[in-house]
Amino acid sequence: MTQNIYDTPAFFAGYSKMGRSVEGLAGAPEWPALQALLPPMAGLNVVDLGCGYGWFSRWAQEQGARQVMALDVSQKMLARATEMTSSPAITYAIADLEQMDLPAATFDLAYSSLAFHYIVDLKGLFARIHEALVPGGWLVFSIEHPIFMAPREPGWLIDDQGRKSWPVNGYQQEGPRVTNWLAEGVIKQHRTLGTLLNLLIQAGFTLSHIEEWGPSEADLKACPELEEEQERPMMLLVAAQRSLA
Amino acid sequence: MTQNIYDTPAFFAGYSKMGRSVEGLAGAPEWPALQALLPPMAGLNVVDLGCGYGWFSRWAQEQGARQVMALDVSQKMLARATEMTSSPAITYAIADLEQMDLPAATFDLAYSSLAFHYIVDLKGLFARIHEALVPGGWLVFSIEHPIFMAPREPGWLIDDQGRKSWPVNGYQQEGPRVTNWLAEGVIKQHRTLGTLLNLLIQAGFTLSHIEEWGPSEADLKACPELEEEQERPMMLLVAAQRSLA
Repeated sequence: MTQNIYDTPAFFAGYSKMGRSVEGLAGAPEWPALQALLPPMAGLNVVDLGCGYGWFSRWAQEQGARQVMALDVSQKMLARATEMTSSPAITYAIADLEQMDLPAATFDLAYSSLAFHYIVDLKGLFARIHEALVPGGWLVFSIEHPIFMAPREPGWLIDDQGRKSWPVNGYQQEGPRVTNWLAEGVIKQHRTLGTLLNLLIQAGFTLSHIEEWGPSEADLKACPELEEEQERPMMLLVAAQRSLA
Repeated sequence: MTQNIYDTPAFFAGYSKMGRSVEGLAGAPEWPALQALLPPMAGLNVVDLGCGYGWFSRWAQEQGARQVMALDVSQKMLARATEMTSSPAITYAIADLEQMDLPAATFDLAYSSLAFHYIVDLKGLFARIHEALVPGGWLVFSIEHPIFMAPREPGWLIDDQGRKSWPVNGYQQEGPRVTNWLAEGVIKQHRTLGTLLNLLIQAGFTLSHIEEWGPSEADLKACPELEEEQERPMMLLVAAQRSLA
């Protein structure tokens, strides 16, 4: 069972105030880059793995997706998502991504935003996603970057000229990382970028695009505090495809 | 024209004393991991891009490669390589990887060890390698890891408990990095890991394996000073394939 940190009061309270919770996709600076990796939505059968408030699922439906299955482990999240949704083309369901079953060869697109770094058995999840995609179907996801996740004590170092560095250590040691982001004791699973990509390849995916997101000039103008994200890779965006055969 | 730092006296003197120069492949701790990515050599037509002293080229020939073309920009390196070689199946030639022409659809394997981080036009080089491979042919290479290469002032930070961190900054800013490794003013080309992998994909390669090398238990026993390489990704090893069609 995946840790369901989202339903703890402190985490939920903190999370619900974040830009990406209040404003949706527009509040997530990486969204334009992630959107650029997506196939056209018209007519697609989509599964949204870790849908949160359902912003992406509603966007996909508005863009013409035929059907969206939106899954999350958090009851509170799904309750909010359901409140904000009117289309019958979106189905919400409670699901632990570590345990869930998906129908075989069904989805044209599996999407996930910042959920996979909580998954212990990522090999098993990738195998189930691969099987659930139609031939030629897409997996597009974001995940916290391993360089962001690895350090024992995550936090910027600032030199006497005010310049920031991100202190990387423990990179080769894969396994849980406990942080106190929004709540105490949030457990994330660190694996190297190589391991992550090889798990996708071994599951049968062809890698189409790998992006280590950083802010654009426009992002920096709109949101100057993103400047520090020029120093390190913080998020990883990946597009991969199930082979056509 | 690529900077030919190898023929400057200080660099050549320093380089010629390194373990990997004196002992060959056995002196390179990443060699077992890189070797594991290689196809069986028997009967292959191989090109070694940046062959240095020719250790890999001779190994490939001893393992049964049919023909090895070994290219390097350094006259001094090639002179040493030629001295150590007796097989007529290996052809050495001076070549600037940025400029060279390769025959089309000729090689079963293109190999390169720690040379690509000097290349300015990596897109052009990958296109030429792709064209020079037979369908199904392999590109296997090592390169300095972008996390290793990015920082303004590369050097370990050591805390009061003696623990090391690698200070990452400037990661998103691609372009030249000037270091004083063995000689003053060695110019390397930083690009993000995402950019590197996307250049391969855009050139037509399918990514088969991505490894961020770190020392094994046996490595640490044989060479305790490698312990710090558990903290960061220092080298990247990649296997990619030209499609069969």
